[in-house]
Amino acid sequence: MRKAVTKKQSVSKKITSSHKPPILFHADAHDPDMLYFSRFSAFDPYLAFSHNGKKIGISHSMEYQRMLLESDFDEVLLLNDVQSSAAKQLGIADYRKISISQQVQQIAEKYGIKEFRVGSRFPAGLAFELHAAGLKISPEADGNLFPERIIKTASEIEALRKGNAASAAGFKAVRKALMESKIKGETLIHQGRELTSERLRELISVAALEQGAVALHTITAGGDQACDCHNAGSGPIRPNELIVVDIFPRRPEDGYWGDMTRTFLKGKASDAQKKLVRTVKKAHALGIELIKPGVSGGNVHNAIQAFFDKEGYVTERDCAEPKGFFHGLGHGIGLEVHEAPFMRATADWKFKAGMTVTVEPGLYYKGLGGVRIEDTIHVTPGGNELLSSSSYQWEIA
Amino acid sequence: MRKAVTKKQSVSKKITSSHKPPILFHADAHDPDMLYFSRFSAFDPYLAFSHNGKKIGISHSMEYQRMLLESDFDEVLLLNDVQSSAAKQLGIADYRKISISQQVQQIAEKYGIKEFRVGSRFPAGLAFELHAAGLKISPEADGNLFPERIIKTASEIEALRKGNAASAAGFKAVRKALMESKIKGETLIHQGRELTSERLRELISVAALEQGAVALHTITAGGDQACDCHNAGSGPIRPNELIVVDIFPRRPEDGYWGDMTRTFLKGKASDAQKKLVRTVKKAHALGIELIKPGVSGGNVHNAIQAFFDKEGYVTERDCAEPKGFFHGLGHGIGLEVHEAPFMRATADWKFKAGMTVTVEPGLYYKGLGGVRIEDTIHVTPGGNELLSSSSYQWEIA
Repeated sequence: MRKAVTKKQSVSKKITSSHKPPILFHADAHDPDMLYFSRFSAFDPYLAFSHNGKKIGISHSMEYQRMLLESDFDEVLLLNDVQSSAAKQLGIADYRKISISQQVQQIAEKYGIKEFRVGSRFPAGLAFELHAAGLKISPEADGNLFPERIIKTASEIEALRKGNAASAAGFKAVRKALMESKIKGETLIHQGRELTSERLRELISVAALEQGAVALHTITAGGDQACDCHNAGSGPIRPNELIVVDIFPRRPEDGYWGDMTRTFLKGKASDAQKKLVRTVKKAHALGIELIKPGVSGGNVHNAIQAFFDKEGYVTERDCAEPKGFFHGLGHGIGLEVHEAPFMRATADWKFKAGMTVTVEPGLYYKGLGGVRIEDTIHVTPGGNELLSSSSYQWEIA
Repeated sequence: MRKAVTKKQSVSKKITSSHKPPILFHADAHDPDMLYFSRFSAFDPYLAFSHNGKKIGISHSMEYQRMLLESDFDEVLLLNDVQSSAAKQLGIADYRKISISQQVQQIAEKYGIKEFRVGSRFPAGLAFELHAAGLKISPEADGNLFPERIIKTASEIEALRKGNAASAAGFKAVRKALMESKIKGETLIHQGRELTSERLRELISVAALEQGAVALHTITAGGDQACDCHNAGSGPIRPNELIVVDIFPRRPEDGYWGDMTRTFLKGKASDAQKKLVRTVKKAHALGIELIKPGVSGGNVHNAIQAFFDKEGYVTERDCAEPKGFFHGLGHGIGLEVHEAPFMRATADWKFKAGMTVTVEPGLYYKGLGGVRIEDTIHVTPGGNELLSSSSYQWEIA
């Protein structure tokens, strides 16, 4: 009666690598390369491959209509047809007993394929079975399957902007809660109860959801908790303590992320806290100032490290309790929240227009607390532009 | 000053497989076997392995404290130490250039390991590198790494009960919205605007979040949309149409899922719609009645198929537009929303106490619409008990 499924807005671009062996996937949409290849939000793993510049998906009958309508595949084969052909050829009575490996062998024979390139995450079990069956399986190093993923299209940049808008909505909710809170001894009272890290995460989740994004693993860590910078934070938020809030929501619609961090403090900041925030803010501005096409990612990281050193903030890394500036300055962001390129001391790649990276300097000292300020930027021919926008106001009386 | 990180409530049980070669992982918590092994919610992939019945994780310094406190590992090695040892041995000046494969080789040498068992999802790239370096890598078939995962502990069952409570909260929100809606021509008006599939998903997401779970890929499909049973549904919800609502939220705290489906109709149901719902409800009750230890999963599926056939509801499967009862009767649920055991026609496994499965008969006919009713059950020595609870009232005036 009514066909309400509409072709979703595509963020795809042509994938051409005609002279190389075809690509093979067995994955769900959690594999960013599979999602990039198919633009299809699949919950369960399925087979897909390339052939003569075409993208071909193999679909269970239950997914068939949706894959036809929503995916980027040029052709969709019915799983049942592939299984039936294989069963006939192998003399197996029940087509439902055809394994995934036998399905791939059937495809390889039909299309005359002797070798498949696969991503580094391709499942080893299937790779070994196919290898044993005489097919050559060539795993590519991370990022080598679609090196073009590192340069974003206009629609990908737009999706990242929306992801960051969801982060920004989270900060707005945090700021509002802190403004509404009353200091009572060593706690904050908000809407009649103690304000906690957990409550802040709830407020952030709802705010992100209203922007069409899902915020998991959000960090809302006060005081020393923020110094273990993967500690999500737990328990009461204390007055006069630095609170690191790192929000990286994902948009289920297209799989793109936002990633931003702000640091807050409710009450009155000490001079040492003020200096720490000021220094990180300066480093953040310096990082953004330095990034433009042709500049080395490693050099930008090292410039920020040198700036912190010069300001007298000591770093100790790679130990059980690191301190100072012990993480990378930033990372690529797209279909993965952490993807190439990575800004770290040893990085020897250079910025190119179209890359999208986070800039997130931070300083962490037990007793004083942690500060991190993070935005997402898009490298342009002349420099870069922010894909995120939120106030840097941090001290809330 | 304050150590607010607390050891989370563990849902673990001992993993013993001492006579077999040690296990190796390079994965994040998205890999259910890794999460089962580590009980550690890691965002980025990391190395872990077993040795003499101990579970050992390798942690970046940034994750070290959290891994010590929150994981099930008996021992946590600092990544930096592993890299430094390897660099020294290989005569490489910069320890940060040590690859993941070199880290594993270092571990293998230190612990005298010649062979690792890996899950079927282990990354092929790393597997091939390790193989080339002379280590034997033996991928296990799906489910063979931890066959004990199929039998749930009391705390796992409790986690699944909470996951299903989040689904139930979603149905409550849907029922409320449908009750509050007014029929206006071919649409429903709720809170001043047209009620859509998208709006129902928003209401469900918020309700699930309030129960500590994240509901993605929720199905809210009306009319013929529900007949393509992986179509999430879009656009206006129509009066007098069957609406299939399938909610499967995940709890970020422990990684366990809920999975339930209810079918609704706002307005007045036709006799054919009533008979369809009645028949599926009977099939649902029959499925639950049949499941107990010793019974074959395939036989239960086939009994439901035979029941639908007898009632005159024709099934056509494995074609581009399947109809009738074209999917499996249910599936295991735990750290994966779809995991072993699967109830389908060809299944030859038998139910055992401690298994947790969904029971979800459905019938779908274009023009009439779709009905699916799904609950999650736990197999007990004497039969089974529901882990989900929500009204079956479906027709809302």
